[in-house]
Amino acid sequence: MNKKSIQSLEEMKKLLEEEILHQSGNIVINLAGIPKVSKSNDIIGNCLQEWLPQWFQDNHLNLESNRYTQTFPDFIAHFDKEGKKDEMIDIKCWNYKNNPAFDIANFDSFYNVMYKNPSKIFAKYLTIGYEPIEHGFKIDYVGLHDLWEILGETKKYPLNVQVKRGRPYAIRPVNFVKNPKSAFKDSYKVLDAVKKFREKFPSDVVDYTPDEWLKKTKSYLDGNLNKECK
Amino acid sequence: MNKKSIQSLEEMKKLLEEEILHQSGNIVINLAGIPKVSKSNDIIGNCLQEWLPQWFQDNHLNLESNRYTQTFPDFIAHFDKEGKKDEMIDIKCWNYKNNPAFDIANFDSFYNVMYKNPSKIFAKYLTIGYEPIEHGFKIDYVGLHDLWEILGETKKYPLNVQVKRGRPYAIRPVNFVKNPKSAFKDSYKVLDAVKKFREKFPSDVVDYTPDEWLKKTKSYLDGNLNKECK
Repeated sequence: MNKKSIQSLEEMKKLLEEEILHQSGNIVINLAGIPKVSKSNDIIGNCLQEWLPQWFQDNHLNLESNRYTQTFPDFIAHFDKEGKKDEMIDIKCWNYKNNPAFDIANFDSFYNVMYKNPSKIFAKYLTIGYEPIEHGFKIDYVGLHDLWEILGETKKYPLNVQVKRGRPYAIRPVNFVKNPKSAFKDSYKVLDAVKKFREKFPSDVVDYTPDEWLKKTKSYLDGNLNKECK
Repeated sequence: MNKKSIQSLEEMKKLLEEEILHQSGNIVINLAGIPKVSKSNDIIGNCLQEWLPQWFQDNHLNLESNRYTQTFPDFIAHFDKEGKKDEMIDIKCWNYKNNPAFDIANFDSFYNVMYKNPSKIFAKYLTIGYEPIEHGFKIDYVGLHDLWEILGETKKYPLNVQVKRGRPYAIRPVNFVKNPKSAFKDSYKVLDAVKKFREKFPSDVVDYTPDEWLKKTKSYLDGNLNKECK
């Protein structure tokens, strides 16, 4: 195991590729001395989301949980002690035999959070594809993406959002692994799509218009895009 | 372990009290040979919901999963081979240090399902309260309840339903353990409360009125209540 601390997103990805990709695992629940294997998708995904941060800690990466668990992203990676190289990171896992269908955020909260704190447009997504096997699972895919690399439009809407009974729910990724061209080209395209989607599904609880939303978030992007150009 | 097959809900509850209550357990995820303990509430609850049906099978109770995973309840317990003593059962787990806040069903789907299949008013709820401990959890509570024994009203609404942005989401239990008097008195009270709640939050997608809903479900109850009087 690498004893040197992880200094960047690239090193984080490299470690995942070297030590996690193609590895297998299992989940066992013991109760009253009787062990049973758990292998539903929900449990594998949730358990991986607990295992990975602990494993990164073992590898000397300080991955701090977001104190506000209701908002995204879940973690801040501190790549140096001074906090100059902090990165917002979410860990998302899905059954690699299916299209990625994890929730990125509730559309309404994404819209509000992004207005209050547009820096979240730079959140990174650590995406883990697993495959259930007879007594557990194996890791078929690891990726590290910008938000715009996993979001896209659908035939019906400017942004892939789960809509139930005429109301927006979770923002979902496009199939960024098998069809990366279906994703947006850059962060500006994400903002445009969010604004267009909001216009189709207006909110009655926020006191700013979609145009004001776009103006504020875009102006943040203009001023900070150098951070995204690695 | 009891080698005789379980013949009734009462025997099911007795076995839980004798062999599961006050026992402790843990959940371990292994990946690439590295074990980590998982102990978030979501994972404990979901894992228990996988462990318990397997353990009931070990104890010769045929607990069949509902093929329609999107509707409640999750299981059918076949207490005899002829299917004369089938019971609909849901397994719900929660952190016993908190109020029970598991989802019983989405209000809209509950409303629709109950209209199409009013027999679901007789579903039983196996409720398991666990407590996270340092390296796992222990079981502090086991109960087996009728639906009406865990549902109740709130100060604001005739039924305890999570309401977000003016829309109903999950039906939640009242605190049936610490305050059993807060629950409804019988199944009729559940139906009345659902109807009143629907009137407060009308649906634009169903083609029957709350009155028609109540008439149909109540008339089923009138004709079948003997099943509930054990």
